[in-house]
Amino acid sequence: RIDGTRLWQSLMQMAEIGATPAGGCNRQALTDEDRKGRDLFVRWCREIGCEIRVDRMGNIFARRSGTDNDLPAVITGSHLDTQPTGGKFDGVYGVLAGLEVLRTLEEGGVRTKAPLEVVVWTNEEGARFSPAMVGSGVWAGEFSLDYGHSRMDKSGITIGQELERIGYLGPEPVQPAPIKAAFEAHIEQGPILEKQDQVIGVVTGVQGIRWYDVTFFGTPCHAGPTPMEDRRDPVQAMAWLCEKLYGEVKAYSEDARITCGDLRAEPGSRNTVPEKVVLALDLRHPTPEGLEHLHRTLYRVAEQAQEASGVVIDVREEWFSPPVAFDKDCIEAVDSAVQNLGYSNRKMVSGAGHDSVYISRVAPVSMIFVPCAGGLSHNEAESAEPGHLEAGCNVLLHAMLNSAEA
Amino acid sequence: RIDGTRLWQSLMQMAEIGATPAGGCNRQALTDEDRKGRDLFVRWCREIGCEIRVDRMGNIFARRSGTDNDLPAVITGSHLDTQPTGGKFDGVYGVLAGLEVLRTLEEGGVRTKAPLEVVVWTNEEGARFSPAMVGSGVWAGEFSLDYGHSRMDKSGITIGQELERIGYLGPEPVQPAPIKAAFEAHIEQGPILEKQDQVIGVVTGVQGIRWYDVTFFGTPCHAGPTPMEDRRDPVQAMAWLCEKLYGEVKAYSEDARITCGDLRAEPGSRNTVPEKVVLALDLRHPTPEGLEHLHRTLYRVAEQAQEASGVVIDVREEWFSPPVAFDKDCIEAVDSAVQNLGYSNRKMVSGAGHDSVYISRVAPVSMIFVPCAGGLSHNEAESAEPGHLEAGCNVLLHAMLNSAEA
Ligand SMILES: NC(=O)NCCC(=O)O
Ligand SMILES: NC(=O)NCCC(=O)O
Repeated sequence: RIDGTRLWQSLMQMAEIGATPAGGCNRQALTDEDRKGRDLFVRWCREIGCEIRVDRMGNIFARRSGTDNDLPAVITGSHLDTQPTGGKFDGVYGVLAGLEVLRTLEEGGVRTKAPLEVVVWTNEEGARFSPAMVGSGVWAGEFSLDYGHSRMDKSGITIGQELERIGYLGPEPVQPAPIKAAFEAHIEQGPILEKQDQVIGVVTGVQGIRWYDVTFFGTPCHAGPTPMEDRRDPVQAMAWLCEKLYGEVKAYSEDARITCGDLRAEPGSRNTVPEKVVLALDLRHPTPEGLEHLHRTLYRVAEQAQEASGVVIDVREEWFSPPVAFDKDCIEAVDSAVQNLGYSNRKMVSGAGHDSVYISRVAPVSMIFVPCAGGLSHNEAESAEPGHLEAGCNVLLHAMLNSAEA
Repeated sequence: RIDGTRLWQSLMQMAEIGATPAGGCNRQALTDEDRKGRDLFVRWCREIGCEIRVDRMGNIFARRSGTDNDLPAVITGSHLDTQPTGGKFDGVYGVLAGLEVLRTLEEGGVRTKAPLEVVVWTNEEGARFSPAMVGSGVWAGEFSLDYGHSRMDKSGITIGQELERIGYLGPEPVQPAPIKAAFEAHIEQGPILEKQDQVIGVVTGVQGIRWYDVTFFGTPCHAGPTPMEDRRDPVQAMAWLCEKLYGEVKAYSEDARITCGDLRAEPGSRNTVPEKVVLALDLRHPTPEGLEHLHRTLYRVAEQAQEASGVVIDVREEWFSPPVAFDKDCIEAVDSAVQNLGYSNRKMVSGAGHDSVYISRVAPVSMIFVPCAGGLSHNEAESAEPGHLEAGCNVLLHAMLNSAEA
């Protein structure tokens, strides 16, 4: 059994880095705060004798050797970066649950057959740099290293520049070694476990996600003398599109999701019709057909909005992460750990993307969910119960142990 | 008669300050570019022997003495600040037309009875600092000096700080001296004169303007796992409100105007429902009743949007500039100048706010409009014909001369 108190204390200590007045965390990818979080993780791993490797995407691998180090490793991990107004648990829990597993083994003097690794993946959130899960994505071969390094934040700074600046542009090639099994513990970030009063979610896959930059090109003109019928107003076209698209997505299925997380007008002067409006759009659905339907709906509604308004609308795909089914054996490993430990549980599909999505391309993987209060995540008020976090970490311990011994 | 070539050359020289690659000007209020524009204006005025005074709002008064300097002055002027993506003529024309009138008199050795003044008003555009026309507004007693100095741009810098920094926090009190008559030449910024093939607009007044900051308060949550019905999405509420409000405003009357020039989501992360959306709204109508109707419509629609979405919507009034009727004698002065010069013309109401709105509270005033290409303004492509600019300036010369001699 893992030490729930130690796990909690480590979570709280990590949460001090980038702590916000409202009780959350702002530790965006590759900022100084992220560097501090990484440094703390590396120190903790070294204290229990782990070997640290950092690759050229800044992914950190903390390895605890086994009795047979020629065997493929069993890995776990997640990310330390947060949303700009994020919480204390999203990602961090998966990293520190992995650390807690290693600490427990070290304390108990247990040496597994296969080596174990805890990984910190770079820029999972996709908040500062789009897309999400880019560190694990390059590692798994979904993206090239050039693509990874050239991702830019809103001020034009790239991942490559920031890795160099904070000292995490490691020497290792960004590529997977053979892996026996991979697991990731995470808060659910949705309301299902809490509503159904279940302690553990055995995660069988991840829904599909498509990201778009939608740009509405208007004609700047004066707010006063310009007759309404002479205008090409990108705000009006954007409102028309959003009204219609929200309606259609919600009517299509209760599993469909639409989010416009970012939005801005340029040049942004109150008495000038904007030159453009830029909208960051996120569409999701658990099935390939459903997601394809949403994708087509977007293009159709954009076409209609363009016709209705005379405003040119450019829909550019920014990221596509198709629905993923996790590995049967890994799901089974989690499931039997849960059964042995006797936690209430249910199988479920993840609504959020996770590094495990890309890991699944090159290794058998599954995930372990625990409830979070009110299903709230990507919010400074994100919270989870120590007992649930402990339970999820025990499941991780057992799943990793069984896989490393098998 | 004024020298149209000299006027055009001065306009083009001023347009080099803050010139944009797309052929417009970015010379926002109290930036270094604005300082350079002011310095050039002051130099030009000194070259023809004007006395320069700067008041504590940075308004610049260039005075050409008359034969009887105890008489109230005849004044003209406008502003040198531009929109972030502004043109070469908006405001600048009124200032340099005034300068051209003084240059013409100087060259001709004409000394008027009453003194003449050309004024540069601070922050007319309202683009960098809200509200618009704040320099003339403080001068006319609509706003306190404290209010004027404390206006902030988006990065939190105040007018007071910037006046000090660029060296235009003058020593003079911000208050009107007695004024015989005031005139302001300006491009129309709308399509009427061009469409009707008229050279001069005799401006009888200005339509009413109301500015609002509309804030939509959502609950941040994750774009993936959060069911649509659990969300409080400020983007959806904003789209609903805009769709409805644009529709109602346009249906109300063809004289009504609605513009959302600025818009942003916070914290602005694609996979997080925003905490808030902030909208800068501009409503206009030529009649008090019409503007009041639009105002009420906004509050009603905001109420409905709040009920429909569960998103709290805060509507804060930022500025209110009621419709204004200009002075009969000043309108008559412009009208008879136009008749004498034989330019085609029409009476019209201004769709844009101008410094003359506030000047009208303390002095008799009217305005002279000239056409601009396609009615386009607040756009880098803003353009006007040299012949029209010359005609407007001749009208200004005659109107000022007649008033100064009367
Ligand atoms: N877990 C998490 O918040 N991931 C961010 C990627 C996504 O948008 O789903
Ligand atoms: N002339 C002009 O562009 N003024 C700005 C004030 C307004 O918004 O009407």
